[in-house]
Amino acid sequence: MRCTRCRETAVIEVRRHNAAYCSACFVHVFRGQVERAIDRWDMLGTDDRILVAVSGGKDSLALWDVLLDMGYAADGLYLGLGIGGYSDRSGEITRAFAESRDVTLRTVDLAETYGFDIPTAGRKGSRSTCAVCGLSKRYVFNKAALDGGYDVIATGHNLDDEAATLLGNTLRWQTDYIARQSPVLPGKVGMVKKVKPLFRLSELETAAYAFLRGIDYVVEECPLVRGNTQLRYKDAMNAIEATSPGTKSQFLFGYLDRGRPLFRAADDAEVTSCGSCGQPTTGRFCAFCRAQAQILGTRLGVPEPQRDDRQDAEELADEVLPVELYGAEAR
Amino acid sequence: MRCTRCRETAVIEVRRHNAAYCSACFVHVFRGQVERAIDRWDMLGTDDRILVAVSGGKDSLALWDVLLDMGYAADGLYLGLGIGGYSDRSGEITRAFAESRDVTLRTVDLAETYGFDIPTAGRKGSRSTCAVCGLSKRYVFNKAALDGGYDVIATGHNLDDEAATLLGNTLRWQTDYIARQSPVLPGKVGMVKKVKPLFRLSELETAAYAFLRGIDYVVEECPLVRGNTQLRYKDAMNAIEATSPGTKSQFLFGYLDRGRPLFRAADDAEVTSCGSCGQPTTGRFCAFCRAQAQILGTRLGVPEPQRDDRQDAEELADEVLPVELYGAEAR
Repeated sequence: MRCTRCRETAVIEVRRHNAAYCSACFVHVFRGQVERAIDRWDMLGTDDRILVAVSGGKDSLALWDVLLDMGYAADGLYLGLGIGGYSDRSGEITRAFAESRDVTLRTVDLAETYGFDIPTAGRKGSRSTCAVCGLSKRYVFNKAALDGGYDVIATGHNLDDEAATLLGNTLRWQTDYIARQSPVLPGKVGMVKKVKPLFRLSELETAAYAFLRGIDYVVEECPLVRGNTQLRYKDAMNAIEATSPGTKSQFLFGYLDRGRPLFRAADDAEVTSCGSCGQPTTGRFCAFCRAQAQILGTRLGVPEPQRDDRQDAEELADEVLPVELYGAEAR
Repeated sequence: MRCTRCRETAVIEVRRHNAAYCSACFVHVFRGQVERAIDRWDMLGTDDRILVAVSGGKDSLALWDVLLDMGYAADGLYLGLGIGGYSDRSGEITRAFAESRDVTLRTVDLAETYGFDIPTAGRKGSRSTCAVCGLSKRYVFNKAALDGGYDVIATGHNLDDEAATLLGNTLRWQTDYIARQSPVLPGKVGMVKKVKPLFRLSELETAAYAFLRGIDYVVEECPLVRGNTQLRYKDAMNAIEATSPGTKSQFLFGYLDRGRPLFRAADDAEVTSCGSCGQPTTGRFCAFCRAQAQILGTRLGVPEPQRDDRQDAEELADEVLPVELYGAEAR
């Protein structure tokens, strides 16, 4: 197999592009896809202060690596989830990456700062482990970005993640969640802009990039993620992709081109400030503070008025979509 | 396992309804689902003359059986596709069913009437075998219904068929095809109304109904259908359904409730009469006449003006959706 660009021996095949690449050309093409995503979706400005959500996994470290290489001012943020040895190894690998590039890594420990870790949250709260993990990440990343004065949060969501999320939302015709799925979530008061520069690249490609660039990353999956719905959507997409290469990207890009305009109906829930932490919320207290109070057995000031699941869902959906809640990557 | 309705020993489990039924109750529930589909979607009037497209498979014979049982005036139409022993057995079984119920079965032989059979069409034309088969069925059923003065054509599309079609169209965001997917396609000039009374029932349920009612049907699959895209969409849906029972019906019904209104954008292609056969078409000659001319090596009057694939696709989509083109069942 020869490289499509330079005719040297290829090391990776990209079936949906009917192409194969040598190591150097693959890295070049990978960066080109990231540039294209950034330019087309106006993700990052050259003067932006960027906070990359890093978990120690292939996607987030590949993202940080490529952004640094492209000359962006990108700090990292690692969130300690307290998932035993898995979190220990993730933290070490992330710190080693930051040291090797001589870049700033911020760290927040969920248990230290908020009084609970993810295994406890999964046992004690009413949400699934993956749900509370996703909620916590989005909350902490946004808060850290606000506090640190960052312009934008970059996450490592890849094509497989985005296609699986879209499939899940479409299988349920969650029209409001579908409407909000985008490679860019614009900033608003109290909510930092979020971008997904890897959304054009498959999971296999981010893994190959990390490998070819000599990035050491956590290969093991989060031990709490087994049986996760999102993984089953990925399996279903992979089964179709295997015989029809390009299905995933057609699905996601076709949605962005032709489907999304149809779903952009009014779904602007009124946003106010959480009565406990001041972060944006559509209710009296934000979803994170309510989860935290439930897990810790504390009360949020006066008794909360009756709430329905809908508000939870809306707040979860407000930044990233709800079926993205699973937790192997600190997004 | 006990019957959910009468507590007798159950013979079938319907996981997405979290229910199980004995033979008599299952038949009752099955009919209830057909009635619900007919009522909710205004499919059939008591005085309508109905033409059921029958292939000899479980779906179409179950449909004919249930409609007769409900007292509808339903004749059958069998289309001889010329697919060797498979078509021979299908024809015999269909005739035997009609005789046993003492009802009218009309028959059209594709080769006799139109000069080609499906295996030849697959080899000679530019369309895939399944595509030309689907096209031929829709054309012949419509023409036979018009000629015979029928009010409505009923086809045996089940929940699995419809969910797989929707998945295929959604994966490609074929917004115009998505917009037209419906359990009822209203009649218009030259086009007989089409209904799918089994769309609320799964493939497993139509098979169980046929079995429990003692209906002899062709179990073998069309020998030409292997590798068909629609089958892979069914596999993907089945994989998700296995761990999340109800996904298929949520997907289809959720689309009909919440998705479809968003897609009902203007896609009313101008319909005229085919210059060769007079049937409705969006171009100069209809897709069937063009396929036929290509297969037989004849010319359609004066040379055709340049056409693009889009017109083909639109005409195929006009009655039934394009990924429904596969051919095991004479729909």
